[in-house]
Amino acid sequence: MSETLSPHPVVAKLEAVLPKAAFRDMSPGYFEEPRGKYHGRAVTVVAPGNVHEVAETVRVARQLGVGIVPYGGGTGLVGGQVMPDGGPPILLSLERMSRIRAVHPAEGVLICDAGAILQTIQEAAAAHGLLFPLALASQGSCRIGGNLATNAGGVNVLRYGNARDLCLGLEAVLPDGTIWNGLKRLRKDNTGYDLRNLLIGSEGTLGVITGASLRLFPRPTSDAAAFVALESPAAALDLLVQARSELGEGISAFELVARQSFDFLAETMPEVRQPFACAPNWAVLIDIGLHGAHDAAHAMEVFLERAFDAGLITDGVIAANEAQRAAFWSVRESIPDANRRIGSIASHDVSLPLEVLPDFITRAQAAVASLGPLRVNCFGHLGDGNLHFNAFPPSGESRDAYKAMAPQVTRAVHDLVNDMDGSVSAEHGIGRLKVTDLERYGDPAKLAAMRSIKGALDPDGIMNPGAVLRG
Amino acid sequence: MSETLSPHPVVAKLEAVLPKAAFRDMSPGYFEEPRGKYHGRAVTVVAPGNVHEVAETVRVARQLGVGIVPYGGGTGLVGGQVMPDGGPPILLSLERMSRIRAVHPAEGVLICDAGAILQTIQEAAAAHGLLFPLALASQGSCRIGGNLATNAGGVNVLRYGNARDLCLGLEAVLPDGTIWNGLKRLRKDNTGYDLRNLLIGSEGTLGVITGASLRLFPRPTSDAAAFVALESPAAALDLLVQARSELGEGISAFELVARQSFDFLAETMPEVRQPFACAPNWAVLIDIGLHGAHDAAHAMEVFLERAFDAGLITDGVIAANEAQRAAFWSVRESIPDANRRIGSIASHDVSLPLEVLPDFITRAQAAVASLGPLRVNCFGHLGDGNLHFNAFPPSGESRDAYKAMAPQVTRAVHDLVNDMDGSVSAEHGIGRLKVTDLERYGDPAKLAAMRSIKGALDPDGIMNPGAVLRG
Repeated sequence: MSETLSPHPVVAKLEAVLPKAAFRDMSPGYFEEPRGKYHGRAVTVVAPGNVHEVAETVRVARQLGVGIVPYGGGTGLVGGQVMPDGGPPILLSLERMSRIRAVHPAEGVLICDAGAILQTIQEAAAAHGLLFPLALASQGSCRIGGNLATNAGGVNVLRYGNARDLCLGLEAVLPDGTIWNGLKRLRKDNTGYDLRNLLIGSEGTLGVITGASLRLFPRPTSDAAAFVALESPAAALDLLVQARSELGEGISAFELVARQSFDFLAETMPEVRQPFACAPNWAVLIDIGLHGAHDAAHAMEVFLERAFDAGLITDGVIAANEAQRAAFWSVRESIPDANRRIGSIASHDVSLPLEVLPDFITRAQAAVASLGPLRVNCFGHLGDGNLHFNAFPPSGESRDAYKAMAPQVTRAVHDLVNDMDGSVSAEHGIGRLKVTDLERYGDPAKLAAMRSIKGALDPDGIMNPGAVLRG
Repeated sequence: MSETLSPHPVVAKLEAVLPKAAFRDMSPGYFEEPRGKYHGRAVTVVAPGNVHEVAETVRVARQLGVGIVPYGGGTGLVGGQVMPDGGPPILLSLERMSRIRAVHPAEGVLICDAGAILQTIQEAAAAHGLLFPLALASQGSCRIGGNLATNAGGVNVLRYGNARDLCLGLEAVLPDGTIWNGLKRLRKDNTGYDLRNLLIGSEGTLGVITGASLRLFPRPTSDAAAFVALESPAAALDLLVQARSELGEGISAFELVARQSFDFLAETMPEVRQPFACAPNWAVLIDIGLHGAHDAAHAMEVFLERAFDAGLITDGVIAANEAQRAAFWSVRESIPDANRRIGSIASHDVSLPLEVLPDFITRAQAAVASLGPLRVNCFGHLGDGNLHFNAFPPSGESRDAYKAMAPQVTRAVHDLVNDMDGSVSAEHGIGRLKVTDLERYGDPAKLAAMRSIKGALDPDGIMNPGAVLRG
């Protein structure tokens, strides 16, 4: 890049305040994102070693009016971590701040740098016999700062909540370069505005998260998983209500899988062992975890027998051991991969009020069908009302021939979501991909308040310019 | 009041936009608060009948530069609902907006006006076999808008979270008079900044909450309560760790009671039946609720036997039936009343990291003892690290003789809390009582950010002037 040949004045300023180790090569990986929709740029890539170096970087950026793009694991799906337009920013990577700072097992609290890899945090909790329940497909490479900045979801939200629900406190550098030390280990703290939740989900536009205090949970002592076959999403919803009433907080996950998912898996990943000899129209993967002397497999059996007798499910398989449970999960977790191999035309991360979710699926499928002979794969976190609703070309046909339909498909799906009081971004965030959607569907009073807050905290607009709000 | 004799110009303006029914008598109740520390004033008291009338009121206030004090049930303990200084405000009561708007049992969602009484919401949930878990001593008169504006806590936080954790969405009038319709029923919605959590806990300084979408839970099918005697808070903490590990989310409450609480109860409320023939140094009230076929009383028995064998508890009584369980709770809930009858010199609502909580109790007791021969009653929500730590005159002596020591006592307790990384307001909020504490102990970067946000959303400073932040 030309910027490396004739260094931007910002580089000299940064060299004066940061150690040599903080400067990184401009590797292409920093400027790509998983779906290849955006290609970023930067004047330089820095990876500060501590919060003070982050603060120095922010101060330099502010002084020179240069943007900062905070960068975690680079796994975000809405382009929040790459900036393709406007003056090239400083890319600020948290990769060198990846320590677990402390674990307080008796409190169920872990404190770490924002650059800690999610899986490292899970393992540090497990080493104390505890659970950090945030679990995502990208957990081997995503970083907790990014998880928090985007309020990540995943498969355990039903039981343990989103990333924001798992966070007790933050350390962050605000856009004026001051350090907020909010690394509390408290369950209750009503001292002023909720700056923590304001930063969580703001996608790096209100500051750089540099550390987090996280909640750990006792690990359930007995787990069980089952795949059940059902006739319809409505039956799945009835089953969920039944499960909540019988098992309470014991349900860890309740994932909907469409027949199309099984078909895509069979086509692209035949090595993944399918739970049913003959793929059902709809399936649900249920995972439960109980404490104390309770036997989860027995509880699952009793629950499913009753559901079968009530006509809610047509078939079901309970994992006989931990290996089989892992195999069930590998089916669920391979779906995004299978989708990628088929190649989607348009994908959507939406949530709906649970009551209208079955009706939404019917209407959204009809809306897509009216646009062309597309295939739909609809799967996701039913327990949270969160569906991934993705459209694909007809069997045997190429994606390119249909790619031009993407905007129409997305518009039809998102309009319907909006009409049915849902959200066009359930867990992935706004990033740069959904700025227009937010403007179209967002509540005007909320949008105005967001702009006021952004203007107040970041008057020069240096923090992740163009993400969430148009610059 | 003189204002009623020669009406303030704001009254004529309000009469032009609000129906007659919205104007209330200036009853003294609106200007008092439970502890009698503040006496409020107002130019007029209005009780709008819907969100549009609230918006009209806010617009008039803004136009004329008059403050607005939002008023729920008037039960707050930090003076957030009464404004003693500055130009008299409009007191805006939510009492006429008290409807349950809708219940969605399959979703576990209830939508109501902000003026709905907490107990009414609990009952509406119960009518569908569901639980709204927010539970406070004042539940018969406090209103959900106030609970949310102050992020109320109570006895079930350990299991279900604070008021903010029970809220899916808000409807509110922002300081510019616009209506934000954020009454979502979604578990996941990552579309922009978290305005909901910013308003929750902002104590009416950033807008008026007019409606809420709340989470309901399946009711546990089997409950059990026990009072156990222990030697020390450290033993209580060990018992908590044990309980979390054995019972997981099944623990609904874990309340610490000091011997002083039992003594005060015996002295002032002999009609309250005590659980122990001889009051122990420390006790814990444990409540568990299980789902499905599990027997909570049996689980409690097994748990306590093991705790007894491990030397964690010295005695224990399990409630044999629902009446006895209610009797146990009435002991816990009568403590604040007994405290009032004795008459505290200074009371504190603090939270500490769990690990240091036993040490805090020892040190705080010593700090108070060093100031004079005061009695301390320390009790509260141990599971949340939240203690009510209150100081009383020596037995037989009058409160007035010691009242002058209050600032010293509070300063000693709060300094210690701050040194030990705790919070000087765990669940009651800042209101007007703790503005100075917030300035003293609050993180400077957070305070600056709070002031920026307040200035951006409420540039004329009309929303609850003087609460949380100095006007």
